[in-house]
Amino acid sequence: MKKVKVAINGYGVIGKRVADAVALQDDMELAGVCDIITDWRIKIAVQREYPVFAFNDDFRKQMENAGIKVQGTLSDLIQKADIIVDCTPKKIAAKNIEKYKEANLKFIVQGGEKHETTGHSFSAENNYETALGRESTRVVSCNTTSIVRTLTALKNAGLLKKARGTLLRRATDPWESHLNGIMNTLVPEKEIPSHQGPDAQTVDPDLDVITAAVKVPETLSHLHYWNVQLTREAGKEEVLDAFRTSTRVALINYSDGLSANNAIKELMLALNRPYGDMYEVALWEDMLKVQGDELFYAYVVDNQAIVIPETIDAIRAMTEIEKDSENSIRKTNKSLGLRQKF
Amino acid sequence: MKKVKVAINGYGVIGKRVADAVALQDDMELAGVCDIITDWRIKIAVQREYPVFAFNDDFRKQMENAGIKVQGTLSDLIQKADIIVDCTPKKIAAKNIEKYKEANLKFIVQGGEKHETTGHSFSAENNYETALGRESTRVVSCNTTSIVRTLTALKNAGLLKKARGTLLRRATDPWESHLNGIMNTLVPEKEIPSHQGPDAQTVDPDLDVITAAVKVPETLSHLHYWNVQLTREAGKEEVLDAFRTSTRVALINYSDGLSANNAIKELMLALNRPYGDMYEVALWEDMLKVQGDELFYAYVVDNQAIVIPETIDAIRAMTEIEKDSENSIRKTNKSLGLRQKF
Repeated sequence: MKKVKVAINGYGVIGKRVADAVALQDDMELAGVCDIITDWRIKIAVQREYPVFAFNDDFRKQMENAGIKVQGTLSDLIQKADIIVDCTPKKIAAKNIEKYKEANLKFIVQGGEKHETTGHSFSAENNYETALGRESTRVVSCNTTSIVRTLTALKNAGLLKKARGTLLRRATDPWESHLNGIMNTLVPEKEIPSHQGPDAQTVDPDLDVITAAVKVPETLSHLHYWNVQLTREAGKEEVLDAFRTSTRVALINYSDGLSANNAIKELMLALNRPYGDMYEVALWEDMLKVQGDELFYAYVVDNQAIVIPETIDAIRAMTEIEKDSENSIRKTNKSLGLRQKF
Repeated sequence: MKKVKVAINGYGVIGKRVADAVALQDDMELAGVCDIITDWRIKIAVQREYPVFAFNDDFRKQMENAGIKVQGTLSDLIQKADIIVDCTPKKIAAKNIEKYKEANLKFIVQGGEKHETTGHSFSAENNYETALGRESTRVVSCNTTSIVRTLTALKNAGLLKKARGTLLRRATDPWESHLNGIMNTLVPEKEIPSHQGPDAQTVDPDLDVITAAVKVPETLSHLHYWNVQLTREAGKEEVLDAFRTSTRVALINYSDGLSANNAIKELMLALNRPYGDMYEVALWEDMLKVQGDELFYAYVVDNQAIVIPETIDAIRAMTEIEKDSENSIRKTNKSLGLRQKF
């Protein structure tokens, strides 16, 4: 079978993880990673023997002066690839897109870009099929991914009427907390509803979801609290069974010592996950409460990791190397070691 | 007019604030404060010329050895007072209560104690009248006080059907953050619903309220997010008018630079409030959103300060020096400088 050649533009928080995940797939080949940096971060790519490309000739010189072996520029990488995943910082991707389009190269952007950029927003368990053969898509953000995963499970079980969520957002990514962050305060988003609710509707317009969000002084992961109006009265076990239909929602228990975000992070490190990544939504089984036709629950989202399996599936859908969503999801889950229970 | 003699047992986070507030009232006299500590904290009481008492003879010796002038023990203070406010740490008050009862002394406990301890839970704008002449009451906790204040306003306007809240709780009090605290994590409460919803119902059983709570790594104040099902569709101005009927809910605006808990704290310090205390619930006017018959809003609660005016009113109700709640609330608000808008 011919392997799909995947290029990655931007070797940052998401890009480096996508590269590692692509390298694990037996139906994909990493065509190369492109960046502008010259420090330890890109040297990791060199050590992993990933082909490294520079954004343009100027950056190529800088990178070569720093002793980094460069295979070419973004233009060269574009020629070598079947698809490119743009992992550049928010708002920068929009400029790169013109280049991809000129070269008739399929591309994926991140959740930070607007839905209109591609006209399609992706979440594997919800709408894999609609991405088949597409020229472009947008893998929605970490928070939105978690919302779509969990609510899709409730929707498929016929239980979802409407969902109202409060999102506690980590202030910044761990390795960037010396650059920006917040301390000893809470910073609410200016607007209620926050953007994540409407964003989930770009994947699935049927979801009746409203969110409010607040930045909190920690770097590990997000924490969501949900209040869901069910279509009818239901039992706790029935709701848990609905969540169990998602292969990317893992049930956890407070009584098992998983009583805080840092405990969950430590478990991921103990499981030898790269960077201690958690690809799953970790949802508290014992905390979950059903009262009549109302459902309450909380879960943790690893904002650096949750979109990685989604991105791998988006590559398969767009290139049609796998037309069945379940097959792709199973393959991705196995390669990354996802679990449905911790 | 004879002044009511108020004793305070426990000169900690709440006790020292109640003492200062009592000293400001023209119808009250501070009979004394009682504690067991010998360090700078109780020396502040001495400097303010508050009569200082020791919990018992042993502590009296220790305090006198530390150079603190002690007027007697708790037993002596009990004899001098018309009412005592117990501000000792959680669970300790229960043991003190026997002494108050033996002496036929009216007493107030804090929200950390159980409702059953007194059989009455107090929040001035909701149930002042039911506390008139009582032998004891419990001033509900900071979070519960904020819930009762805001929901009472909506209830009185005929707008409240049910309220669902997510509470972000400061990890510990500012001056104790070197003793205990949390860092770079989030710690959900084990149970949903959390205790604050049922606790609000000890004041007003009519409130249909469910809460979930999580500890966050900051020390300044709590932040609540609410989703309220209204009895009918309503306009934003109508909802704001309902909140304006509470003299202890102050509207704030994000657009005015009050965009985070620390900004609000700094404003309180700039207003020369003692300790930078905020007695009001600070509710974001511009963030508040009404969608059909659903209402969304967020507010900040100063957990060290919000119960102080409530305690002053509880003293007036129980001693019947003022039988009208509005008169007491107005008097308290004026003495502490409460505002309805920042």
